[in-house]
Amino acid sequence: MSIIVLGTVALDTVKTPFGLRRHILGGSAVHFAIVCRLFTKVNLVAVVGEDFPSRYIKFLHQKGIVLTSLIRTEGATFKWGGQYKGDLNTAITLSTELGVLLTFRPRVSEEQKNIKHIFLANLDPDIQNHLLTHMRSPHLVALDSMNYWIKHKRRSLLRLLKKVDIYVANDQEARTLSGESNLLKAAKYLRLLGPEMILIKKGEHGVLFFSDRFIFSIPAYPTDRVIDPTGAGDTFAGAFMGYLTKVNKINEASIKKAIIYGTIAASFNVEDFGLNKTSRLERKDLQQRLREFRKYVLF
Amino acid sequence: MSIIVLGTVALDTVKTPFGLRRHILGGSAVHFAIVCRLFTKVNLVAVVGEDFPSRYIKFLHQKGIVLTSLIRTEGATFKWGGQYKGDLNTAITLSTELGVLLTFRPRVSEEQKNIKHIFLANLDPDIQNHLLTHMRSPHLVALDSMNYWIKHKRRSLLRLLKKVDIYVANDQEARTLSGESNLLKAAKYLRLLGPEMILIKKGEHGVLFFSDRFIFSIPAYPTDRVIDPTGAGDTFAGAFMGYLTKVNKINEASIKKAIIYGTIAASFNVEDFGLNKTSRLERKDLQQRLREFRKYVLF
Repeated sequence: MSIIVLGTVALDTVKTPFGLRRHILGGSAVHFAIVCRLFTKVNLVAVVGEDFPSRYIKFLHQKGIVLTSLIRTEGATFKWGGQYKGDLNTAITLSTELGVLLTFRPRVSEEQKNIKHIFLANLDPDIQNHLLTHMRSPHLVALDSMNYWIKHKRRSLLRLLKKVDIYVANDQEARTLSGESNLLKAAKYLRLLGPEMILIKKGEHGVLFFSDRFIFSIPAYPTDRVIDPTGAGDTFAGAFMGYLTKVNKINEASIKKAIIYGTIAASFNVEDFGLNKTSRLERKDLQQRLREFRKYVLF
Repeated sequence: MSIIVLGTVALDTVKTPFGLRRHILGGSAVHFAIVCRLFTKVNLVAVVGEDFPSRYIKFLHQKGIVLTSLIRTEGATFKWGGQYKGDLNTAITLSTELGVLLTFRPRVSEEQKNIKHIFLANLDPDIQNHLLTHMRSPHLVALDSMNYWIKHKRRSLLRLLKKVDIYVANDQEARTLSGESNLLKAAKYLRLLGPEMILIKKGEHGVLFFSDRFIFSIPAYPTDRVIDPTGAGDTFAGAFMGYLTKVNKINEASIKKAIIYGTIAASFNVEDFGLNKTSRLERKDLQQRLREFRKYVLF
């Protein structure tokens, strides 16, 4: 099995109480892919500009990520600048240069159109929809979005939500889109918008999953080494979707297991800047931390 | 086995998006006792004024709570007025009338001085300490406090922390006292202040327990019927300490089980105003919801 991820490839400038990193490799599709590859073959659909360092292309290639549909075009790569303070739970965006994202139209190869597992990482919902309409037999489609689109492209987003199986949102987004402050109420509301499964990411507080058949709630892996949470949500989604793609089965047990893997992967992501930790991960690291996690949360 | 709880008996005026209740029975010691009694005999140490309705005395008595050391004195009963908005996670205090609390000196009977399990609910740390010095053989002492004392009576609080086994704090208090925004770091810091066990309550996000021997993290029981969270923390502590008193054993298994009972009890508390739900609870209600909770959080 393989998966396709549509999202951003970015150059991030991140400032946290632990330091500053300039123009490091980031973006939703990259954070997703770098852990998803531990479970399945990942096809990246994204765009970069002329200024995108070729060493990063090489890096992604070496990690086994399929780059057939990574477009390199005229203009500047998408750049995000952000800062975290205090409890590092909320990013303060300092700058956004969309660059080549402004004119991005995703394209996939004929072969890729047959891929059944699809992750639409945060992007303009019209672009997400554009890709989805080209896929021939979507079997499991998950969607991420952000407050900007909820506010400015609500209609497109609502239309798209009817076509996806899983909606992945953080607590803030879930509250904004549903108008409910209680997260379980929010999840129930979002369920009625279309997706059979609602996954609400609560940062340091873990995850709440809702479907008609069952509810699942788990805390985050307790860590006191939070250095840079950028991409934690996409890392979560990468392991989550990677596991579901690998086992190619959707039931209570597989979804719970996928959520645990997502939780574990995200805990590694926050422990260093950018991809420093996640790019070095092996399946056995996930397994080991999963055993620890069980001790922390089971009774 | 029996337990002694020192704290407040209050008349609460509470406004939430679901309504307004005036001068309903509340206070830390009451919320604690009303669920603790499901596990063990509870001795209440507190003060009320002349205006305290005798029907509330009768109510507490009928619930089997030992009122020998509930002082009724000249002056007005402690009154708290508060409001909850939006996600109902944070109380906005609108008014506080200390009344008889201002001159309160707890006293206990000779018999009560031999009680081994003690809960010091939120009060002036000097008063908490006053009670503790009168106890002859404390075996398990837990302490709750609040930001006001952390700020204004830090020294007294720090002195007292050296004498207790369990420090129960909410996330905000844990962060304020430790100066750490990461909760695991905060817990480790608080551990060094004396208490062997640190219990951080995170409201809708559950609980983090820390000791040298193990860490335990669980989410709250997922509920979308949050009507009035006043006293949820004390309700948690009531079931937690009640269970530990009943089994009279401190180990990983009993602590985890006590935390689960606390979580379940707190979930009932928030579902209605004041004591409406918790005063009608029976052990079998806790058991039933515990079985549901297992489905929500175990994997």
